[in-house]
Amino acid sequence: MSDVNRMAYLDAEHRFTIKEEPIPRPGPGEVLVKVSANGICGSDIHFYHEGKLGNFVVTRPYVPGHEACGVVAEIGPAVKNLSPDDRVVIEPGIPCGRCRVCRGGRYNLCPEVVFLSAPPVNGTFCDYLVIRADSLHPMPEGMSFEQGALVEPAAVAVHAVNRAGVRGGDTAIVLGCGPIGLLTLQAFKAAGGSHVVCVDKLRPRMDKALELGADVAAAPDSDDPALSGGADVVFETAGSVAATGMAFGCARPGGLVVQVGWPEDNEVPLNIANFLEKELSYFAVHRYANAFPAAISWLATGSINTAGIVTHRFEFDRIAEAFRFTLEHRQEVIKTIVHN
Amino acid sequence: MSDVNRMAYLDAEHRFTIKEEPIPRPGPGEVLVKVSANGICGSDIHFYHEGKLGNFVVTRPYVPGHEACGVVAEIGPAVKNLSPDDRVVIEPGIPCGRCRVCRGGRYNLCPEVVFLSAPPVNGTFCDYLVIRADSLHPMPEGMSFEQGALVEPAAVAVHAVNRAGVRGGDTAIVLGCGPIGLLTLQAFKAAGGSHVVCVDKLRPRMDKALELGADVAAAPDSDDPALSGGADVVFETAGSVAATGMAFGCARPGGLVVQVGWPEDNEVPLNIANFLEKELSYFAVHRYANAFPAAISWLATGSINTAGIVTHRFEFDRIAEAFRFTLEHRQEVIKTIVHN
Amino acid sequence: MSDVNRMAYLDAEHRFTIKEEPIPRPGPGEVLVKVSANGICGSDIHFYHEGKLGNFVVTRPYVPGHEACGVVAEIGPAVKNLSPDDRVVIEPGIPCGRCRVCRGGRYNLCPEVVFLSAPPVNGTFCDYLVIRADSLHPMPEGMSFEQGALVEPAAVAVHAVNRAGVRGGDTAIVLGCGPIGLLTLQAFKAAGGSHVVCVDKLRPRMDKALELGADVAAAPDSDDPALSGGADVVFETAGSVAATGMAFGCARPGGLVVQVGWPEDNEVPLNIANFLEKELSYFAVHRYANAFPAAISWLATGSINTAGIVTHRFEFDRIAEAFRFTLEHRQEVIKTIVHN
Amino acid sequence: MSDVNRMAYLDAEHRFTIKEEPIPRPGPGEVLVKVSANGICGSDIHFYHEGKLGNFVVTRPYVPGHEACGVVAEIGPAVKNLSPDDRVVIEPGIPCGRCRVCRGGRYNLCPEVVFLSAPPVNGTFCDYLVIRADSLHPMPEGMSFEQGALVEPAAVAVHAVNRAGVRGGDTAIVLGCGPIGLLTLQAFKAAGGSHVVCVDKLRPRMDKALELGADVAAAPDSDDPALSGGADVVFETAGSVAATGMAFGCARPGGLVVQVGWPEDNEVPLNIANFLEKELSYFAVHRYANAFPAAISWLATGSINTAGIVTHRFEFDRIAEAFRFTLEHRQEVIKTIVHN
Repeated sequence: MSDVNRMAYLDAEHRFTIKEEPIPRPGPGEVLVKVSANGICGSDIHFYHEGKLGNFVVTRPYVPGHEACGVVAEIGPAVKNLSPDDRVVIEPGIPCGRCRVCRGGRYNLCPEVVFLSAPPVNGTFCDYLVIRADSLHPMPEGMSFEQGALVEPAAVAVHAVNRAGVRGGDTAIVLGCGPIGLLTLQAFKAAGGSHVVCVDKLRPRMDKALELGADVAAAPDSDDPALSGGADVVFETAGSVAATGMAFGCARPGGLVVQVGWPEDNEVPLNIANFLEKELSYFAVHRYANAFPAAISWLATGSINTAGIVTHRFEFDRIAEAFRFTLEHRQEVIKTIVHN
Repeated sequence: MSDVNRMAYLDAEHRFTIKEEPIPRPGPGEVLVKVSANGICGSDIHFYHEGKLGNFVVTRPYVPGHEACGVVAEIGPAVKNLSPDDRVVIEPGIPCGRCRVCRGGRYNLCPEVVFLSAPPVNGTFCDYLVIRADSLHPMPEGMSFEQGALVEPAAVAVHAVNRAGVRGGDTAIVLGCGPIGLLTLQAFKAAGGSHVVCVDKLRPRMDKALELGADVAAAPDSDDPALSGGADVVFETAGSVAATGMAFGCARPGGLVVQVGWPEDNEVPLNIANFLEKELSYFAVHRYANAFPAAISWLATGSINTAGIVTHRFEFDRIAEAFRFTLEHRQEVIKTIVHN
Repeated sequence: MSDVNRMAYLDAEHRFTIKEEPIPRPGPGEVLVKVSANGICGSDIHFYHEGKLGNFVVTRPYVPGHEACGVVAEIGPAVKNLSPDDRVVIEPGIPCGRCRVCRGGRYNLCPEVVFLSAPPVNGTFCDYLVIRADSLHPMPEGMSFEQGALVEPAAVAVHAVNRAGVRGGDTAIVLGCGPIGLLTLQAFKAAGGSHVVCVDKLRPRMDKALELGADVAAAPDSDDPALSGGADVVFETAGSVAATGMAFGCARPGGLVVQVGWPEDNEVPLNIANFLEKELSYFAVHRYANAFPAAISWLATGSINTAGIVTHRFEFDRIAEAFRFTLEHRQEVIKTIVHN
Repeated sequence: MSDVNRMAYLDAEHRFTIKEEPIPRPGPGEVLVKVSANGICGSDIHFYHEGKLGNFVVTRPYVPGHEACGVVAEIGPAVKNLSPDDRVVIEPGIPCGRCRVCRGGRYNLCPEVVFLSAPPVNGTFCDYLVIRADSLHPMPEGMSFEQGALVEPAAVAVHAVNRAGVRGGDTAIVLGCGPIGLLTLQAFKAAGGSHVVCVDKLRPRMDKALELGADVAAAPDSDDPALSGGADVVFETAGSVAATGMAFGCARPGGLVVQVGWPEDNEVPLNIANFLEKELSYFAVHRYANAFPAAISWLATGSINTAGIVTHRFEFDRIAEAFRFTLEHRQEVIKTIVHN
């Protein structure tokens, strides 16, 4: 175990500073994790570029990152089921476990949740991290750290699929072919879904979708009959007003629409007549709950393929460059991984 | 059995003509029903006043009405489980029973459905009617024909409650205190719901809601804290853009919103940020499926009280007056019943 | 606040000893509750009479009781939402909040659960008790302590109804008319159920069921057609091999059977041909999860009536007599309440 | 179109007689199908060998077979969505479409259901068959007739998975590695399941399970820790008293048990203490409803592999030999296909 803990602090002026700090020690029920790899999330880029996202504002330097995996370096008292050298994925939302929503199984909505990397809470772009043991999920043999870093975004896709209650043979339309769209496409197929139409404005992203299992890739303004009302489930992952506005039109009577992306405006005009006529169900997705085991399982078996998703890689010391590149090459980058 | 069948035809010029026609005979699997009472639905009034509703247009005289009950006058060959003199409620949507949505249990979405009173299909403002036996539900002893005429709108409320999957102890906000809002309030309590806030702009409707079991009645622009985000379930029954637009704001994190009313515009701006942040679920209600038995049960036990809902009554021969009065006294009338 | 804490210890020889001990102080997140009333559970009587139940054995004196309510006497640091003098019901199962089943919303199955009164853990037959704040549920105004003491067994009934996913208009057969059967009857109706047949061998219990809302009361060997296969839901609450063995026969094709009672033998012969032919679903009930709010709501509104359930009352100092009487008059006692 | 219709009649003395009959003509809503291939079901073998199964008895010669696919030869009036030469799979249960269970989506429980090959109703071991259009499911391009003949048994596996409500990452134990067990193994994985333990007494069947994707294969009397209580879902497909009796023990707390097989005795002793302690859910499977589309989709993509399941093939004229061989080589045969 090295005796230095590099912490990558981001300030409101887009600057990264790597500080060396003491390695923390785990308390009762806690674990010290040596971080191996991190993905850069779209939300990290928002904080980097704009210094805020929703109600969260960067007012003082903090450590971004919440798509991380690593190795158990030390366990605190009363930790069972984990041992040093176990490889683990970090679930970055830490709920209270006691309030009504936690007790009801939807701990992602806990009003007391602490989410790593939501300023001012520090995230996972560091070498060492102390975290509660129940926030760690074992990585199966043969899973790489790069796959491990994809578990967190894959868990969003799993949760989207769970919220929809996908049944075997269902068909889907996935709006948006960024990382979440591509993971949702694969999670939907892993859950037994059949025909999937993926929609994006960018040709390379459409090609990526086809490469990863889409049956059809279409542009949003296309008159592809696949877009005109036949899908059992529609996933909005583009996070745009336009895609959100077209979602109800893509679903079959009795179908489901799952909103995963955050549109750029808070308010979006929706076709309620369409919604009522077809008696649709519309589900929001807010992070995930109880989704890491499936995400790990599907990544481990290859049902969710990472090869096509990870497009760029950087060393930890070049984190500033990793963020700048990811911001400046949005159309080209799908997922950037930073290795410790 | 009288030997004349009065049929009340409505034309596109708001005129009713009562014609005397021969009494039809039931074929195999069919039943002849002598109609006893009909409620006037808001959709009947739309056709009366505007000659159209959604895609349906009055192009030639037709018989309105679909909230009806009566007595079995004659059964056709191969009809089991029903006998002459049985009192029955009519379920007015007649699905094919064979397509995918029918086989899946959501027969209200059947693309081949025949809905009584959707022009040009004749409805139930007549003395006699032949209908498939499986469209009839027996009325329990002690249930009045007036209660029977309320089963159909109550079934909408039951379906709304079923779509939400209400659990004991849930709290609700009901937006709109017209007939459907007042029935939904009661269906929600009958399904085990606890505290209900009813919202309407009109004071008399708020009073009616309190009389029928609401715990709080509020105006939509009130700053009642009950409206600011705490309900497990929100029912939009007002059918207005304004009420639909405020629904997401009324639900608790993890809560449900059920859209029962049809807003005057097809497109309504919704707060998707709110929807995502609270990870809400939003369900459309299109008529009902498998809801008549519960509606009958709850009306029979008094869990759904009709006394406060039926405000006006007319004889069949005065149907034109019944419609005109109902149209012209919208704020005062909750439900008008026409007795044969 | 009196400064003595009476604790009623039960040993393996059926003896109670009331000891006076110091009043404990609440730590962070904890609350000191002054107990007002306790119900005697069937499991308390098992420990009293036989010194064991399932895997739990009375090896040294412990305090029984887990159907309790009281008043907040003092709150520890960091307790929000509760204040001294609040009246509260105690939920006696204290889960870890962090393991897989807890995170999934089924905290009643937590392998680390601490259940008050499961030997050697002390229960609620005492004056003062320190407990985590999230184990307390506020009592609404107007609810008596006697009603409060019934919330815990009512929560079992609520959970039974929730497990079944009761829908409006469903019919039920309740096997057994002891306290849990009578509460389940009422919870089923509160959840929107319609016709209920209650079954018991004892005439007075059948009468009690009729008094509390059963539509029919029948003896198990009767040839009542209501027992021959028509119910949407069957609740076994008798805890007998005979009743468990007849449950599948009572359900309609596609129906549900909910096992609430514990049969005297571990192994029971079940008619699997019947189970398959009718494609039934069979649900076990183990205590409850997320059920106290509905139980409190239904008791507060009178949907669950306590008058007929509480048949006997004792003062705390006479707890030994209360247990002996309850054991010796099993057929007459429905529920005994001990008041502090 | 050949002008002879061979019908393979089976009598109560284990004899087959192939008769040539006129080709029937489709009426309104009906389709004439030219049969291409049939699988032999275990129930066919029961009728062949014992002349009865459950309540069904062979009293006069009838045509067995209900695992069939073919080609549309002619469509009757009013048939839409199908044309001559379409390749189709036959769903052999024909429900009324109008009763309560049909309307509720569980048409497999229809009391009026007509099931092809349940004596005295003729089945699909013939050249031509007239059937209602809604009983046919189109075969996708590239699917072979042999795969088509496996859709019906695969639909049982799909229904088992649907009844359980499998979620991504779930683990399973499959008891029995006959055709239904091997299909359930694959359907479970297709629906997103992860680790599966397959259990059988016969070594070749265990090997087959491993070949088709099982992670572990075990003998029922093994002390494999995988059998001691950890599975999210347990599928009983062996149809034996012994396997049924061990199912509850294999499930984790909060787990599910799905009964697919029919034990040789009607009554089976079950460990109810285990069931209650772990709060299990136990679901019966009776044929299938709404399951053919998923079965077709999973067979078409190869998620359900037929290569390992079809072990023997016969020509139609040798049907008597096909049945005799299948009966006499039970341990060796998994599925026999008869080609027309």
